[in-house]
Amino acid sequence: MTSSAPAVPVPAGWPLHDTSVRGFASDNYSGAHPEVLAALAAANGGHQVAYGEDDYTARLQEAMKGLFGEQAEAYPVFNGTGANVVSLQSLVPRWGAVVCATSAHINVDENGAPERVGGLKLLSVPTTDGKLTPELVDREAWGWGDEHRAQPLAVSITQTTELGTRYTVEEIRAIADHAHALGMKVHMDGARLANAAAGIGVPVREFTSGAGVDVLSFGGTKNGMLFGECVVALSPEAAHGLTYLRKMDMQLASKMRFVSAQFLALLEDGLWLRSAGHANAMAARLRAAVEGIDGVEPTQPTESNGVFAILPAGIADRLRARFRFYDWDAARREVRWMCSFDTTEEDVDSFVAQLRAELANR
Amino acid sequence: MTSSAPAVPVPAGWPLHDTSVRGFASDNYSGAHPEVLAALAAANGGHQVAYGEDDYTARLQEAMKGLFGEQAEAYPVFNGTGANVVSLQSLVPRWGAVVCATSAHINVDENGAPERVGGLKLLSVPTTDGKLTPELVDREAWGWGDEHRAQPLAVSITQTTELGTRYTVEEIRAIADHAHALGMKVHMDGARLANAAAGIGVPVREFTSGAGVDVLSFGGTKNGMLFGECVVALSPEAAHGLTYLRKMDMQLASKMRFVSAQFLALLEDGLWLRSAGHANAMAARLRAAVEGIDGVEPTQPTESNGVFAILPAGIADRLRARFRFYDWDAARREVRWMCSFDTTEEDVDSFVAQLRAELANR
Amino acid sequence: MTSSAPAVPVPAGWPLHDTSVRGFASDNYSGAHPEVLAALAAANGGHQVAYGEDDYTARLQEAMKGLFGEQAEAYPVFNGTGANVVSLQSLVPRWGAVVCATSAHINVDENGAPERVGGLKLLSVPTTDGKLTPELVDREAWGWGDEHRAQPLAVSITQTTELGTRYTVEEIRAIADHAHALGMKVHMDGARLANAAAGIGVPVREFTSGAGVDVLSFGGTKNGMLFGECVVALSPEAAHGLTYLRKMDMQLASKMRFVSAQFLALLEDGLWLRSAGHANAMAARLRAAVEGIDGVEPTQPTESNGVFAILPAGIADRLRARFRFYDWDAARREVRWMCSFDTTEEDVDSFVAQLRAELANR
Amino acid sequence: MTSSAPAVPVPAGWPLHDTSVRGFASDNYSGAHPEVLAALAAANGGHQVAYGEDDYTARLQEAMKGLFGEQAEAYPVFNGTGANVVSLQSLVPRWGAVVCATSAHINVDENGAPERVGGLKLLSVPTTDGKLTPELVDREAWGWGDEHRAQPLAVSITQTTELGTRYTVEEIRAIADHAHALGMKVHMDGARLANAAAGIGVPVREFTSGAGVDVLSFGGTKNGMLFGECVVALSPEAAHGLTYLRKMDMQLASKMRFVSAQFLALLEDGLWLRSAGHANAMAARLRAAVEGIDGVEPTQPTESNGVFAILPAGIADRLRARFRFYDWDAARREVRWMCSFDTTEEDVDSFVAQLRAELANR
Repeated sequence: MTSSAPAVPVPAGWPLHDTSVRGFASDNYSGAHPEVLAALAAANGGHQVAYGEDDYTARLQEAMKGLFGEQAEAYPVFNGTGANVVSLQSLVPRWGAVVCATSAHINVDENGAPERVGGLKLLSVPTTDGKLTPELVDREAWGWGDEHRAQPLAVSITQTTELGTRYTVEEIRAIADHAHALGMKVHMDGARLANAAAGIGVPVREFTSGAGVDVLSFGGTKNGMLFGECVVALSPEAAHGLTYLRKMDMQLASKMRFVSAQFLALLEDGLWLRSAGHANAMAARLRAAVEGIDGVEPTQPTESNGVFAILPAGIADRLRARFRFYDWDAARREVRWMCSFDTTEEDVDSFVAQLRAELANR
Repeated sequence: MTSSAPAVPVPAGWPLHDTSVRGFASDNYSGAHPEVLAALAAANGGHQVAYGEDDYTARLQEAMKGLFGEQAEAYPVFNGTGANVVSLQSLVPRWGAVVCATSAHINVDENGAPERVGGLKLLSVPTTDGKLTPELVDREAWGWGDEHRAQPLAVSITQTTELGTRYTVEEIRAIADHAHALGMKVHMDGARLANAAAGIGVPVREFTSGAGVDVLSFGGTKNGMLFGECVVALSPEAAHGLTYLRKMDMQLASKMRFVSAQFLALLEDGLWLRSAGHANAMAARLRAAVEGIDGVEPTQPTESNGVFAILPAGIADRLRARFRFYDWDAARREVRWMCSFDTTEEDVDSFVAQLRAELANR
Repeated sequence: MTSSAPAVPVPAGWPLHDTSVRGFASDNYSGAHPEVLAALAAANGGHQVAYGEDDYTARLQEAMKGLFGEQAEAYPVFNGTGANVVSLQSLVPRWGAVVCATSAHINVDENGAPERVGGLKLLSVPTTDGKLTPELVDREAWGWGDEHRAQPLAVSITQTTELGTRYTVEEIRAIADHAHALGMKVHMDGARLANAAAGIGVPVREFTSGAGVDVLSFGGTKNGMLFGECVVALSPEAAHGLTYLRKMDMQLASKMRFVSAQFLALLEDGLWLRSAGHANAMAARLRAAVEGIDGVEPTQPTESNGVFAILPAGIADRLRARFRFYDWDAARREVRWMCSFDTTEEDVDSFVAQLRAELANR
Repeated sequence: MTSSAPAVPVPAGWPLHDTSVRGFASDNYSGAHPEVLAALAAANGGHQVAYGEDDYTARLQEAMKGLFGEQAEAYPVFNGTGANVVSLQSLVPRWGAVVCATSAHINVDENGAPERVGGLKLLSVPTTDGKLTPELVDREAWGWGDEHRAQPLAVSITQTTELGTRYTVEEIRAIADHAHALGMKVHMDGARLANAAAGIGVPVREFTSGAGVDVLSFGGTKNGMLFGECVVALSPEAAHGLTYLRKMDMQLASKMRFVSAQFLALLEDGLWLRSAGHANAMAARLRAAVEGIDGVEPTQPTESNGVFAILPAGIADRLRARFRFYDWDAARREVRWMCSFDTTEEDVDSFVAQLRAELANR
């Protein structure tokens, strides 16, 4: 079945932007996948109970159980920061601390929301590739019973990481087993879970619930939704008060059907993996194309939808005249190029051509 | 110009719910207005800078200035609780307290988010109709300089109120003048601002910025958006750090164009007032119809889109077999009936007929 | 055995104040009881483990068990606000709310510390005498499971109350039984517990642990200590994380022996009851003396160490030329007169004489 | 003039501990200096206005102005964690972050109070000696205006540091000038300010207010008080709301005269410097004695009252049979030996003799 929204007026002169322009700045510069929009239209109309007792959220519960096991419980929320703070608060008491990589989004990109809203202490550990290990966890996992020390009661890992790298199933299981043995819980920030699932070659359950993750922030926005993430309690007995935490953390959508319908559009026929797989493929294409270009020095393995590289001085800014992207570590001229569900092969090829041209004009 | 979204597949079997069912439970049981959905589609495609530097949010700034004056600044957020907490934090320092009606949403329906996330102390004052007055403000506006007392530095009023009542321009100006004379700031929770604007008979500016309100929570969800509200700094010099507060309070949408596009769909051709005016009219129709029915005792003036009434024992539950609605004060058998942009005259008439039938069958 | 501190120099010109001046402003205008000071000197010298693993704190544990039962656990802290916030956080999860009287110290005199530091929502109930009842608790004890409502999971009562009244054993038991039946915990703010214990005629255990109180803020400062209160977990299984909460709430004294030694000085030979009983007796003397004076209208029963009364216009300020005391409710000319362990019969008699003189001079 | 407290009974069997036992565990294992106790007795008696409007606190204001300049304002508090959180909250808005050394007390020893109570994000920088520099500050001082990043708006340095090292006047001025040029404020954690002042050879003003520090946590407890620290606003225009913050952070003592009197006992005739100078001298004696002992490897310069050293395996535990002290970094067998105002030359010499004996018995 296909559907089209009824013909209704849109404001004169819309769209306001040039819809042919795409860059490599972020996977949240993209819009929404058309199938996601279509699902919104299909879920519209009539009245549905607010705050999550609607038919779409009920169906989403089933979809999540299908992915993560019958014990799983889904709590749709607005955004990634919200998903992370709600998740972590559910895992640790007021005196808890969370071990994470220094590069973790919760540590560097959330303006202190975990601390200020969540009342959490983050114990961050430097890494080279954004990935923790049991040994790295141990750098901060100590001092239980010492009232002076914020108690390390959870580990938070990001899959895929902020550096585009990906944990293997075994790596995640090792961290989770280690954490559990220490009495700690495990959170996964899966803002780009789809990119991991599309690339890792095993069902998502194997590297999440199956590997010992207790609570998951399941990302939707970067995977083609307009907005929306989902806290998934993979071990519900490890997570306390998610219903209340979501509300008091201001992450409870009244018309929740519209968050859930988007997720269903992604999950029910595999769109989430197709979209993420495409983004990954575009990043791989870009990586392959720049590999060996003199002057381009990749800095991380390309295991998801981002490519990190060091460029000669001046090149990045000249490239940005046509293609938007961000510095990652300006001090060493490292940049980040992100691909999305809507990145095309032509986008990549044009970009690489321009890169070659700028390098040649040095 | 009209537009229709491209034909794309929606999940088989959708919609999952009966789109012909509507009730009187809440204006957030409704879905989205079709024009709002169309705007989402029209704003889709291509890449736009995330976190608010997109063309739709820029246009929204202009639209808000048009409504509230050139000084106004708009900060789209996810939901009403978020809008309220961000607004109030911007108005008072860490030691501030907020005077509000006991029935205010911030006091009773936000699971303590103002206190827990905002670090705010609420000084609530009982009212009969949800409306503060200068005299009621004075019940809690005292004790400045006394370090033991949370310092009353803001007043929060709701327009229209949780009880369906509406402040006049003069009433708001009196509160704002009084508050300002005391060194206090003024916040308006406008989750149903559109219902006030549609009914009050003067431009929205006159009872907001023009009447002395400093920061406004401008509601979109109950007015036909899928989600989304907007903090509007009407007196930007009175509000501090909104950019940062929105982020740390987990209310910053990455794909903000989709919040702004919805607001634009509402604002640019008056849809917001038409929809709210319709909802108000349906409530008025309902009120008129029940007025004088023996056994139905209205408890508040019907000045927006809700009707409050006391029913004989047992009637409410029997009515709910067909029409969903909530008890307001179960102890005295008071119920609340809310109308929405999609409530029809037939909905109202059928409901009244059923009400009459149930009363006759007592 | 008696002891005197070694002769050591004090700063020239000390004391800086007139030690013969006493008033009726507050029981914290008094200094320390001489036996408390002597205990500090006796506990001094040598090294003792910091943060509570000293011999005095160990002894205090035994003393508290003697008072409240073998299950009791004592956590000395700095002040009353700290004791209350630590106690309440130990009793409820992050989404908890606390039912209390509107006049409760936690609600009106702690600058929002319960909300801002504790993340607690207070659900306050107006009373005439500062005392809750099961019926008054029920005004706010509802809505469990509704995520929009801060969950009422504890009741806090004050013994003796801020209005000088005292709960009977039966009244406390009724509240505690009611609360427990609802799944709520019970906190007692015992800033003036000694005044209750001295007056109630039964052992302190009967109206605390024996009546169902779960956690107690046991006041020391107003009972003759320099500073220091004690959180006592009467039902330790009801209180979570007190060790950590005390530290993170900045209430953990490093040289804790000096808090514990003061408490021991009060508790070990009954000084706490003698001092409080004396203060109560002075209040009773004052009450008896003003009872029947034309123009003095007592407003509360005198059941502890404070007398509340309404005076004719102008009288209070003239009295204050010689005796310091506070207005309680200036709007109705109600004042509060507090007695302390060091209030003398002459203080009371002089005050009453002056009061009579001022009234005669109207 | 000398004074002795009146002879009053102390509990039978007191003291409960062996007052001849001293170790090297911490300067807060010591008791109170006798002159401090004498001051408490001298300040006792009569009534004094509570919460800081007493004659001793007024005198303390003058003493602090004498030390730090006429602009200085003193706010006595209970403990060091409280002083730090109150100070930092006064310097930065809700969205502020604080750059500090990884080893800072606020980062490692306060169970997250800065985050949980203060709502602060700490941006910690590893150091070798506990001392920041402008270059180290720059590691985290960036990103102003980026709403995703907690805004670095203050630097916190510790004098003397947790590692026993001491900033020079020039080092502090360089940090403060750098911070101020970046729009950041400067906090000094002076839990051991006296040890710095006694050793640095210039008046305390030169390395605090004179060097650009905005707010100081002035330590009293480790300098011979029973309890008590003081927040000193050195640049009052840089600090906001200290009166309110102290109360809401539960650091406001009702009988404040007893905090102030202790400080006066320290400050008025130089006791603070004599005591700290003695502790420093004992640490220097200990350092000199172990310097050159085979098997003892000092790890930090001894610039205050602590000595840090690495010992051969097993030695520390055997030493601890007689002398209490802590591991600093157990992984590398580093220990910390702290001296106090009551450490004697014999204590040091006996300890060194025992250390030599244990080493000889390897």
